Amino acid sequence: MAGIANGSHTQPLASWTDGPARRAIIEFVTSATSPGPGFVEVADRIATFDNDGTLWVEQPLPPQFDFVFRKWAEEIKADPSLADQQPYKAIIAQDPAFFAGLAVQDPEVVATLLAAFGRSWKGTTPEEFEAQVRDWLVTVKQPKLGVPYIELVYQPMLELLDYLRAHQFRVFVVSGGGRDFMRVFAEQAWGIFKENVIGTAAEYSYVDGQIVRGEHTLGGLNVRQGKPEHIFAATGRLPLFAGGNADVDIEMLEAAKFAVLVVHDDADREFSYTSGTEASVTKAKELGWTVVSMKNDWTTVF
Amino acid sequence: MAGIANGSHTQPLASWTDGPARRAIIEFVTSATSPGPGFVEVADRIATFDNDGTLWVEQPLPPQFDFVFRKWAEEIKADPSLADQQPYKAIIAQDPAFFAGLAVQDPEVVATLLAAFGRSWKGTTPEEFEAQVRDWLVTVKQPKLGVPYIELVYQPMLELLDYLRAHQFRVFVVSGGGRDFMRVFAEQAWGIFKENVIGTAAEYSYVDGQIVRGEHTLGGLNVRQGKPEHIFAATGRLPLFAGGNADVDIEMLEAAKFAVLVVHDDADREFSYTSGTEASVTKAKELGWTVVSMKNDWTTVF
Repeated sequence: MAGIANGSHTQPLASWTDGPARRAIIEFVTSATSPGPGFVEVADRIATFDNDGTLWVEQPLPPQFDFVFRKWAEEIKADPSLADQQPYKAIIAQDPAFFAGLAVQDPEVVATLLAAFGRSWKGTTPEEFEAQVRDWLVTVKQPKLGVPYIELVYQPMLELLDYLRAHQFRVFVVSGGGRDFMRVFAEQAWGIFKENVIGTAAEYSYVDGQIVRGEHTLGGLNVRQGKPEHIFAATGRLPLFAGGNADVDIEMLEAAKFAVLVVHDDADREFSYTSGTEASVTKAKELGWTVVSMKNDWTTVF
Repeated sequence: MAGIANGSHTQPLASWTDGPARRAIIEFVTSATSPGPGFVEVADRIATFDNDGTLWVEQPLPPQFDFVFRKWAEEIKADPSLADQQPYKAIIAQDPAFFAGLAVQDPEVVATLLAAFGRSWKGTTPEEFEAQVRDWLVTVKQPKLGVPYIELVYQPMLELLDYLRAHQFRVFVVSGGGRDFMRVFAEQAWGIFKENVIGTAAEYSYVDGQIVRGEHTLGGLNVRQGKPEHIFAATGRLPLFAGGNADVDIEMLEAAKFAVLVVHDDADREFSYTSGTEASVTKAKELGWTVVSMKNDWTTVF
């Protein structure tokens, strides 16, 4: 929780090489927080970051899928008839068409997944859900890198969050992933209070003094245009600074005054891939976003 | 914005008499923030306050109705046929049955009002809406007290917000009123950033780089059980400290560890009324909430 109470480092962005990305970030933040034409009022200093692929590893799939698929494996064990239904069938078969549909946000694939998510956790209390996520966080390891997912948060990005907080930015995480999933580890992993986590979210009811999860999402999937919509709903503003890494982040990055796009080009230390990011790279060139090469701009990844 | 940057006063709760309410508040906050059995982690220090009747005057009607009714008066002027339809008809006639229905949250009255709100501001951008509210804030005066509504925020409650912030509480306003209406003046009036304002909210779309208001609400009316539901959605927690003044606040106050109920018993300096608050007063006795008498506990009101 050091990040919440104290955002300072001896040297800002210590794990970034002295290249164009680091220099562009420092130039923008300095301008926005110093007297002059670029100055931005403290109230307007909202920074928003995607999570999967921007703050932590998202290969081979965003970590939350690992959590969810384990739950569904238990459900199939308890009720083998599920194995004939979607999405369980596609997951058991590792059906490439299904996962391709997921990557491009095919509405039918997304609806099938959201409906199954809804059924799996309907009626759960926040305490029960938090215990499940905490158990997963400490017991499960990322298949290729061999450590718990929570250890796969990018150190340079944590330094960027610190740097922004030290300049009176309020930092939000804005992910297509589950809001309540991320909130379990937000304070530990990012030094961000739960209220600064924006994501795809279930509806909840308050019944007999208890918050209980419903079956449906509220406010839609937090991807593409959903990101600025959720950000406005949560904060009353659009971001001053935003960071993302994929096509589903384009609208959020467009909505920001300054945008950072993380490019995964480091097969040795992390992963190298372009799938699902092609349009964002094109947009970055067109709109002058700051492109961050993991390979060239970061001296340390984790 | 002093409250955001600097929550300290020379003497805490300076406009409160040294009575049971002030003492109970200080005792709870001291216990929650000092080593010992009552200590509460900083992350869990969420404080939530109703607005109308808790932070500012709500008589003869919550101020937002004044804003809305002026808009509807313009609409009726432009289209006189509206005067035969609800809710416009009831408002022109000052129909007591309609307003009684509103006070008890009659579903039909509420639905009629929400539908009319939705039509009035559908397609509005945040900038346009903010300009309308700002214009209202500076030009319209409260009918009995003769000053703009923004001057009718209770000084002792501002001191309470400061006192809580000085003890590392994050303070949220949680009102049945419109989230985006309150966000226009939240920073000026309360020293609270827009993101800490929770209220009944329209859905928004992000289209061609612009946030635009839709016709429907998202997440339901922020009253009764809606308050803990909205608080959980916004913060991931239920409140540690909550303040309210009416029956529609009961669930929020019940959900908090420590609850304050403001009682309007000061006809000389503000208003004296019990309508819509009877059940909350009974609950306060039953559950040991701290009752705040405006007459006896506050040396200053505004």
